Amino acid sequence: MAQRKKNAIPKALARVHDTARGRMKRLRVTLRELGVGHAVITNPVDVGYLTGFLGGDSVLVVGTGKPTIISDRRYEEELDAFRPIAKITMRSGTMSGAIAEVLGELHERGSLDGVALQADHLTVGAESALREACKKKVPVRSIRHASGLVADLRIAKDESEIRHIRAAARIQQDALLAALEYLRPGMTELEFTAELEYQMKTRGSSTPAFGTIVAAGANGSHPHYSPADVPIARNSTLLIDWGATHMGYRSDMTRTFGFGRWPRQMREVYGVVLEAHEAAASAIKPGVTGRELDAIARKVITDAGYGEAFAHSLGHGLGMDVHENPRLSAQSDDVLDTGHVVTIEPGIYLPGIGGVRIEDDYAVTPRGRRNLCTLPKDIEWATI
Amino acid sequence: MAQRKKNAIPKALARVHDTARGRMKRLRVTLRELGVGHAVITNPVDVGYLTGFLGGDSVLVVGTGKPTIISDRRYEEELDAFRPIAKITMRSGTMSGAIAEVLGELHERGSLDGVALQADHLTVGAESALREACKKKVPVRSIRHASGLVADLRIAKDESEIRHIRAAARIQQDALLAALEYLRPGMTELEFTAELEYQMKTRGSSTPAFGTIVAAGANGSHPHYSPADVPIARNSTLLIDWGATHMGYRSDMTRTFGFGRWPRQMREVYGVVLEAHEAAASAIKPGVTGRELDAIARKVITDAGYGEAFAHSLGHGLGMDVHENPRLSAQSDDVLDTGHVVTIEPGIYLPGIGGVRIEDDYAVTPRGRRNLCTLPKDIEWATI
Repeated sequence: MAQRKKNAIPKALARVHDTARGRMKRLRVTLRELGVGHAVITNPVDVGYLTGFLGGDSVLVVGTGKPTIISDRRYEEELDAFRPIAKITMRSGTMSGAIAEVLGELHERGSLDGVALQADHLTVGAESALREACKKKVPVRSIRHASGLVADLRIAKDESEIRHIRAAARIQQDALLAALEYLRPGMTELEFTAELEYQMKTRGSSTPAFGTIVAAGANGSHPHYSPADVPIARNSTLLIDWGATHMGYRSDMTRTFGFGRWPRQMREVYGVVLEAHEAAASAIKPGVTGRELDAIARKVITDAGYGEAFAHSLGHGLGMDVHENPRLSAQSDDVLDTGHVVTIEPGIYLPGIGGVRIEDDYAVTPRGRRNLCTLPKDIEWATI
Repeated sequence: MAQRKKNAIPKALARVHDTARGRMKRLRVTLRELGVGHAVITNPVDVGYLTGFLGGDSVLVVGTGKPTIISDRRYEEELDAFRPIAKITMRSGTMSGAIAEVLGELHERGSLDGVALQADHLTVGAESALREACKKKVPVRSIRHASGLVADLRIAKDESEIRHIRAAARIQQDALLAALEYLRPGMTELEFTAELEYQMKTRGSSTPAFGTIVAAGANGSHPHYSPADVPIARNSTLLIDWGATHMGYRSDMTRTFGFGRWPRQMREVYGVVLEAHEAAASAIKPGVTGRELDAIARKVITDAGYGEAFAHSLGHGLGMDVHENPRLSAQSDDVLDTGHVVTIEPGIYLPGIGGVRIEDDYAVTPRGRRNLCTLPKDIEWATI
C-alpha cells in the first residue's frame, strides 16, 4: 500500500474545506452586489456555516483575498485544521481591536473596498466600539450595515445539510421511543425530560436543539411551557416538544399523547390538529408563501371552532438555528423554495384543559416536500 | 380559621412583586442620573430580573408612572400574575411597533422625558427598526443609548439571590456525586455528561447553566472542550466543568479527577492549580480588583513554570447569566464589592497530555468571602 503523504489533508476535512470555499464564494457574490469588498462576520453560527469551524467566539473577515479567522488561544489547536482556507489570527486584546487591525492591514494594502457589518447580529454598543477601534485605521465612510448577509445563503440547504437535520430527527425519535419505555404514572415532567435528554445525548446529540417541553394535562395549554416537578397522570394528555442536534444542525418535533384514556374533547381536538397539519404539509412546494400555508392550517382549525385557540404561527425554517427563515405565519411573505426546511406545527390550546400540537420537519423538494421525520402521527399510535 | 380573602395575592407572589418594585425603583434612580425618564428593556434576562417574569420574549418599558410589559398571547395567562406591578400589553404585530405604540402614548400624555435603549443588547438592525417605528410617534432626539443599565444593578446580589446560586451549586454537587456512582472505565464522555445532566434535571435544574464539559485525559487540555463519543480510561485525568440553575440563577464549578492512578506530571500540576485557587480565593474582599486577583493566581502558576499554560482569565461574575460582571482578568479594573458573586477557576493545560482546572463560586462579604460550594478540592478526594 502506498504510504500516505505526510501533509495530506484527510478526505473528510478536505470536504469541509471545499464546502467552506463554496459558501464563502457565494457570499462574495452577495458582497459584490452590495458594492462592498469585505464583510465582518460576527455571528458565530454564520462563521460556522461559512468556514466549518463550530467552536464559537470567533470572527471571520471575508472578501477579496484569503479570509481571516480571528479567535483566541483557547481555540488555537482546533483552528490549525482551518489554515488551508483562512489566515488564523489569535487576538490578545479586544475583539474590536483585532478586527480593526485586520481591516487596517487590508486598507494599507489598498485591498479594502468597503466593509459590511452584520446589522442583525452586532449590538449597537459593539458596533460603536468597532467604529471607534477602526477610526484611525480605516475610512469610516467605507463601513456599512447589511442584514441577512448569511441568513439568505443559509435558507437553501444542500443535500448534506438536509442529511444532518434528518440525522438529528432520527436521534430525537429513537430517544423518544427509548424514553417512553420508562414512562410511568406519577413520574414527573422533569424526570421524563431528564430521561429524554439523556437518551438524546447518549445518541450523540451534544445538546437539546432548544428547551425541551414536557407538559402533562392542562399544562399543555401553555405553548411555551417549562417542565416542572409535576407528576404525569394517567387518562390525560402529554405534550412533548423536543429536538436534537447533529453536526451543528437542529431538528424540532412535537407529539401529543393520550396517556391512557383520551379526555373526550382532547380526542376531538387531536383530530382537528392532525387534519390541519396534513393539509398544510401537503401544500408545501416551491412557490407557496408562508402566509398561504399558515392560512391553510388556520382554516381547518377555525372551521372546527378553535380559531382563537391556535395562538401562534404555523412554523419556521430550521437549520443551524432552531428558528430561521422562511417564516410560516399570517404576516409572512416568504416564498418557499427547493432546499428550504420548515416545521409544520399547528396547535390548539384550551386553558385549564390542555393542548395538542403536532410537528414534523419538511424539506422543500422541486416537486413538493419530503418529511424528514418518520414517527407516526395517527391517534392510535399516539395513545399509550 | 379565618377564610382567605378571595383576591388576596399569595405571600410568595407578593414577595416577588416587592422585589420587582424595589429593583425598578433603583433603575429609576439610574435613569434620573442619565437624564432620561424611561428605558426600554429588551434583554429578556434583565426583564426577568426587574419584574420576576422569567418567560422571555417580552419587553419592559419602565420609568415614571406604572411600567408596561409587552408580550404576546403565548404568555397571556402567566403574565396575569404581574398585573399588580405593570400594565400588560399583548402585541399582535411586530415588537418594535408595539414598543413605539407604548412610547407614543407616554409622549401624548406628556410624560415621556427621554428614552434609553439597551445598547449592549439591541442589535443595530433592531435599533433602526425601532427608530423607524417611533418616527411619527416620539421625538427622535429623545431616544438615547445606554450601556450596563441593568447589569450595573445586577452585579450586587441580595441575600435571596445568593441563596438561589447556592441552591444551584447544591444541585450540581449532589448531581455529580450521584453521577460518579455510575462512572466505569470505557463509559464515554457523552454518556457521563448525559448521566450528570440527568441527575441535575431530576433535582430541579431546568437546564444546565452552560454546555457541560466532560474531558477525558488529553482532551482536558482544551479549556472549551465539548464532550464526545470518547471512552473514559483509567489512570488518567477527568476534567468536569458543569453548572445548574435554580430560580433563574446559575452556578458554575470545575473539578479535575485522577481516575485511578494520577499521571505523574498531572499530580504535580494539580497541586499548583489548587495553590493558585486558594491564593486567589483567600484574597477576595471588597476593594480588590479583578486584575489583582488574576495576578495572584497567575503568579503561583508562573512561578511553578506553567505560566504559558494558563491561557484564560481567572474568573467572572455569576448570577442570572453565567458570565456577568465583575471580570477577573489581567485587563480588568472591576473592583469587587459586597454582594458580588465570582468564580475562581485557574487552570493549566498541556497539549497532548491533559488539563487541570479547579473552580468554585464565591460571594463577596463585608469582611472577605464566602464559598458557595462545599465539595472538597484536596487531591485525595479528587482521586477516584
